[in-house]
Amino acid sequence: MSHTRAPLAPERFPDLPPVRGVRAGVGRIGLYKHVRNDLLFAHFPDGASVGGAFTTSSTRSPDVDWCRRALAAGGGKARALVVNAGNSNAFTGAAGAAKNAASAAAACALAGCGPDDVFIAATGVIGQPLPAHTVAEHLPGLWETMTAPDWPSLAAAIATTDTYPKGAGRSVEIDGVTVHLAGIAKGSGMIAPNMATMLVFLFTDAALSPAVTQALISKHVDLTFNTITVDGDTSTSDTLLLFATGASGAPLITDVADPRLAPFETALHEVMLDLALQVVKDGEGAEKLIRIEVQGAHSDASARRIGLSIANSPLLKTAVAGGDANWGRVVMAVGKSGEPIALEKLAIRMGGVWTAREGGAIAYDTAAVDAHFAGRAIDILVDVGLAGGRAVVWTCDLTKRYIEINGDYRS
Amino acid sequence: MSHTRAPLAPERFPDLPPVRGVRAGVGRIGLYKHVRNDLLFAHFPDGASVGGAFTTSSTRSPDVDWCRRALAAGGGKARALVVNAGNSNAFTGAAGAAKNAASAAAACALAGCGPDDVFIAATGVIGQPLPAHTVAEHLPGLWETMTAPDWPSLAAAIATTDTYPKGAGRSVEIDGVTVHLAGIAKGSGMIAPNMATMLVFLFTDAALSPAVTQALISKHVDLTFNTITVDGDTSTSDTLLLFATGASGAPLITDVADPRLAPFETALHEVMLDLALQVVKDGEGAEKLIRIEVQGAHSDASARRIGLSIANSPLLKTAVAGGDANWGRVVMAVGKSGEPIALEKLAIRMGGVWTAREGGAIAYDTAAVDAHFAGRAIDILVDVGLAGGRAVVWTCDLTKRYIEINGDYRS
Repeated sequence: MSHTRAPLAPERFPDLPPVRGVRAGVGRIGLYKHVRNDLLFAHFPDGASVGGAFTTSSTRSPDVDWCRRALAAGGGKARALVVNAGNSNAFTGAAGAAKNAASAAAACALAGCGPDDVFIAATGVIGQPLPAHTVAEHLPGLWETMTAPDWPSLAAAIATTDTYPKGAGRSVEIDGVTVHLAGIAKGSGMIAPNMATMLVFLFTDAALSPAVTQALISKHVDLTFNTITVDGDTSTSDTLLLFATGASGAPLITDVADPRLAPFETALHEVMLDLALQVVKDGEGAEKLIRIEVQGAHSDASARRIGLSIANSPLLKTAVAGGDANWGRVVMAVGKSGEPIALEKLAIRMGGVWTAREGGAIAYDTAAVDAHFAGRAIDILVDVGLAGGRAVVWTCDLTKRYIEINGDYRS
Repeated sequence: MSHTRAPLAPERFPDLPPVRGVRAGVGRIGLYKHVRNDLLFAHFPDGASVGGAFTTSSTRSPDVDWCRRALAAGGGKARALVVNAGNSNAFTGAAGAAKNAASAAAACALAGCGPDDVFIAATGVIGQPLPAHTVAEHLPGLWETMTAPDWPSLAAAIATTDTYPKGAGRSVEIDGVTVHLAGIAKGSGMIAPNMATMLVFLFTDAALSPAVTQALISKHVDLTFNTITVDGDTSTSDTLLLFATGASGAPLITDVADPRLAPFETALHEVMLDLALQVVKDGEGAEKLIRIEVQGAHSDASARRIGLSIANSPLLKTAVAGGDANWGRVVMAVGKSGEPIALEKLAIRMGGVWTAREGGAIAYDTAAVDAHFAGRAIDILVDVGLAGGRAVVWTCDLTKRYIEINGDYRS
């Protein structure tokens, strides 16, 4: 992790609830030159249901392929999770597959399970093959030290260019029984749908069937992580997994429409959005969080594409970095999206002040808008005047620091 | 124009040939606070054939709409061209249309032609309506001063954030008669297909039918300006026009397949590519020119989409800025393109040295590649191993200076 916390960072890592049915620990493989943990190992002694979402990249890592296959072959059951930072294992061909096979074999020997019960993720540099046992050889020693999860240390062990560890959690009731949910995430660059270029691990002691676990993730990843972008670049390693141990003793939920699930679903959405926004706030070099709401589009999907066209515009993002309420660049980015709009009705509101209406500039309180753009949270609304489609997307500004961070990441 | 020439700038403005049948001049409307010309007026006393290409933006300016309509309604004939810098007239609604009508009326009165013979373009800030006669009132005075084109002053009058005026020209023979071709361009940011976000005006005294003029532009814009990108942002004002006066006395070419046209077509391609690369080399903050060749793709179109995905990746562009031969980010950008590839055959060559083959890293001469990345011209080849599709695209690196330039463009 970087030493200087981002200006948008939360004050501190939140207090997360205990999640029963999980043992976890962190260790040091040594993939970084400096002293830091780079390995996370988690064990579900009584198993867990698991659901996931993954990068859509065609150059995705063998680790992503491993998880996708295990999820399908194992019927949505999990026993262990192995994650390393410092080397993403992407674009490593047969060597990458061998690393995963060896890691899984070591985890299976310890947890007494089959390879389809082991989930694997990695983040870091692309294209540098590791010896097959690099990760595996550290698992037996780590196994001995595993305890109830210490969330801040787990979050720190998976970070790369992050400037702070990311966590969020909630406790709610399912049918009168308290269940806990805790999540950790890493990510600060190479952030764009689908999905949002990062590692996210969610743990709950609620009892959910594998189908419910997957359905919840599929629905809420689209409303949270798939609405954020830092640089429009999509990682080869995006992995989000939700593990549900059932150790709370709450009744098993087997239908996603079960009304007893509602408070948990709300909590899950909140935790996922919280983590997604923490990723944007840690966007490399970010000094401002930008919320872009698009309404009046042909459809919700069209609204999201327009929103992402704005959110990924380097010209808009640099204008925000400079405190410049340059709504002309919003017009430009709407236009380049290729989505249908009613230009003669196009309207833009910034910080609550309409700056353009009915396809043209209007007189407005520039002092109020300039004051808004001097702040940390930038609010842009675009009405494209066509129909009822609506979406919210989130991004950060593009600063010189982004270029400093990424100009020589490898050295 | 900016005062400091870009590091990739050519040593000087080239000597361009005289083009007969064109009178032109420059003047000052006063759209900039500092003293500079911001108006170009050209007249074709005996008329000209005209062909054009325009931005695909759905928020395109009234000026672009004006040219598209005039081109269709006027049958590809032109008498005058009016261009201003400093205000793009985009997103100005009825006021923008009124500015164009007034400008055209003034030009028509001077040139003795109809409004469909007048072409109008503008570049600069978006969304600031001008009084209708702002441009028009300067045309009569300028008319008196118009002479054979002084290319450097014409190029300078249409520049905005450009650090140098852009020109290119050739002289070739058509059926034994010498014809001249000269082009000017402006553009340095908001550069992405389609087309490449800029103003480009080409003038020739060859005699071409309107259909041939348009066919040449349509074909070669795709092979030149549509292969460059600076920031992936698409302007509301992109306009490229070719005017052919016929004043050379060369025979009229009415069929684009006429073999007598071949030397001219080659010259036109060279001039357009030269101007396109001058735009990339003046990319805001650019210090390195990046050539990306993609082969082995499903089709040429797929190869171009992969190339543009790489060329528009902020992570790749910042790595190049830092002199970091980070081919992992090429893998990432190939993956996010969504185009079909054969991952197990993916190969990457940088500065002539293969750095990855058959879907994985290989040992290579890192000193040679590092030396290549320390230079001004970066050469990346990607073979995606699938079929015979091929494309070349061009971009520049992403530096802190881009953010300085764009952080507060309006003030």
